[in-house]
Amino acid sequence: MRALVLGDHVALLADYPVPTPTDGEVLVTVTRAGICETDLQLVNGYMGFRGVLGHEFVGVAASGPMAGRRVVGEINCACWRCDTCRQGRHTHCPHRSVLGILNHDGAFADVIAVPQRNLHVVPDAVPDDVAVFTEPVAAACQIPAQVHVRAEDRVVVLGDGRLGNLCAQVLARHSSHVLVVGKHAGKLGLLGAMGLTTALLSDPVDERAWDIVVDCTGSASGLPTALRLVRPRGTIVLKTTVAGQQTLAWAAFVIDEVTLVGSRCGPFDQALLALEQGHVDVRALITDRFDLSNGLEALARARAKAALKVLLDVS
Amino acid sequence: MRALVLGDHVALLADYPVPTPTDGEVLVTVTRAGICETDLQLVNGYMGFRGVLGHEFVGVAASGPMAGRRVVGEINCACWRCDTCRQGRHTHCPHRSVLGILNHDGAFADVIAVPQRNLHVVPDAVPDDVAVFTEPVAAACQIPAQVHVRAEDRVVVLGDGRLGNLCAQVLARHSSHVLVVGKHAGKLGLLGAMGLTTALLSDPVDERAWDIVVDCTGSASGLPTALRLVRPRGTIVLKTTVAGQQTLAWAAFVIDEVTLVGSRCGPFDQALLALEQGHVDVRALITDRFDLSNGLEALARARAKAALKVLLDVS
Repeated sequence: MRALVLGDHVALLADYPVPTPTDGEVLVTVTRAGICETDLQLVNGYMGFRGVLGHEFVGVAASGPMAGRRVVGEINCACWRCDTCRQGRHTHCPHRSVLGILNHDGAFADVIAVPQRNLHVVPDAVPDDVAVFTEPVAAACQIPAQVHVRAEDRVVVLGDGRLGNLCAQVLARHSSHVLVVGKHAGKLGLLGAMGLTTALLSDPVDERAWDIVVDCTGSASGLPTALRLVRPRGTIVLKTTVAGQQTLAWAAFVIDEVTLVGSRCGPFDQALLALEQGHVDVRALITDRFDLSNGLEALARARAKAALKVLLDVS
Repeated sequence: MRALVLGDHVALLADYPVPTPTDGEVLVTVTRAGICETDLQLVNGYMGFRGVLGHEFVGVAASGPMAGRRVVGEINCACWRCDTCRQGRHTHCPHRSVLGILNHDGAFADVIAVPQRNLHVVPDAVPDDVAVFTEPVAAACQIPAQVHVRAEDRVVVLGDGRLGNLCAQVLARHSSHVLVVGKHAGKLGLLGAMGLTTALLSDPVDERAWDIVVDCTGSASGLPTALRLVRPRGTIVLKTTVAGQQTLAWAAFVIDEVTLVGSRCGPFDQALLALEQGHVDVRALITDRFDLSNGLEALARARAKAALKVLLDVS
C-alpha cells in the first residue's frame, strides 16, 4: 500500500506492507487525512518517531462491529489494565502507543490498524471533509472539559492558526467574550468572518484583565504573553507544546495566584456532536488538498504561513 | 518608638515616629511578631521595599470597635472600590499596600497602623505565641481553599521549612496520604513527631504518582522536582516564590495535562479556627525568641538552616 513514512527523512513509499491488526485492532481504509502541526514537528525530530505519519483521519472500518461504516479513531492506544487506565485517565496510559506519533503507524496510508474501542461511527450528516477534523476539534473541546468557562468570562485565544481557530470557535459556544490575538491578517480575517472578535498581536490589548487565556501559538513567546494578559486568579490554558526549554519568572504565578492548565487530547463524542450540529465551521479552514501520492508536496505546503488545514485525499 | 527599618540596609531605630493612622486605620500595639522567609528576601532587595519590616504579628487594638482586644491583621490593604476588589479579589487589589512588604510600614515595631477591616479578634484560648502564626497558617489554608483535596489524594509537600511544615499540617487534615520531602533530618524529625510521613530528598520517592504536589522549597529546583513527582492530570501548587527567571521544558505541562496553581495569602478566619481547635501545632516550630531591641540578631538567626520560627517579643 501507499504510505508517507518517516525514517531518517520522510518518503512516500508505494509498497509499504498493509498493517497486521493485533488483538482488539481492526483495519480502517483511510479516505481522508489532515496534516497537523505535530506532524511537521515529528518530521523535525520531535518524539524521535519512526513510521507512518498521520493521526487525523476518517475512513471505513474493514472488520469488527463497525465493518463497512465510516469511522474516526482516537489516537491514544491504551492498555486499559494499568492503574492510570483504571482511574479513567487512559489517554495518559504509560504503556500507550499513539497513532502516527508513538510506536504505532499512522493514517497517511491506504490502511491503518486502530484498536476497535478507539473507533467512533461518523454520523451520516457529517461528510469526510468535516469528519477529518474530529481529532483537533476534540482537542479544542478538551478546554471546556477541563476549565469551567462561564458566559461572562473574558477569554483570549493566542494564535490564529489551525488549533487557535478551532479553540476559539469552541470557546465562543461557552463565552460571549472571546478575543483571538494573532499575527496574520488573513487568518484573523477568516475568524472575523466567522463572527469572532480579533486583534493583531501588535494591537493594544488590555493587560491583567482576562479571565482565561489559551495559548495556541506553539511559540515560546506564548506563555509570557498569556501571563501579561491574564488577570490575578485567572487561568492560562497551555494547548501547544514548544520544543526545548523556556525561561520565565515563575514568581508571577504565585504573586497573582494564576492557574496554568496543560491541555491535550479531548472527547471525540463531543467533537462529533459539534460537527454534526454545525457548531464549528471547519470547511473554511481547508486551504489545500492533495492526493496521498503527493504527500511530500502536501507536507511542504502545510509549512507555509498562509496554509491552514491541508488535507490528503486517500481513497 | 522602636522599629526594625529597612533602608539601604536594615537597622533598629529607637526613635522612629509612631504611625499616624489614615482614614479607616487603627493603631495596634504589637505584642509578638514572627520572622518569615519574605522578610529575609526583602532585606536582600526583593520588591525594593523601604520601611518597617514585619507582617506576622499579634497585638492589642488601641482604638476602633476592637479597642483593648487582642487582634491579628490581614496584610493586604485594599482600596475596596476597584473592579478587582468588587469582584471579591481584594488581596489582588492593584492599588493595595501590603503591611511590611509594599508601601506600608510593618509590625517589627512597637506600634503598627492597620486598616480596621483587616483586623480579626483573637479568641481567648489562643495565646500570643500561637496567634502570631495566623498569617502563615492562613497561607497554608489557602491551598485547600483553591484546590479540592480529597481524603484519598496522595499529596507531597516539598520543603521542610516554616511554610512547608504548616502546609503539611493543614493538608493532613484533608488527606490521609501526605508525604513531606525535605533536606533537613532535624526538621523532618519534627514533622515525624507530629505524625507526618517524611522522606529525604535523596530517598527514592515514587515518580509520576502523586495527585497533588505542593512546592514550599523557595528554590528553583522545586518546580522541576514537582513535575517529576506529579501524576498525569495531577496538580502542582506553587507556594513559594523564587527571585529571577527559571528555565524549564514547558511541554511536560501539556503532554501530562498538569495543572499549576499559584497560591499566596489565605483566609484568617479559617486559620484562627484551626489554631483555636489545635488542628495545627505551631509552638513546636518556635526555635528562637528575641526582644525587638535585638531584632538584627533575630534576623541573622532566622537565616540559619536550623532555625524554624524566630519570634520577636515586642511588648
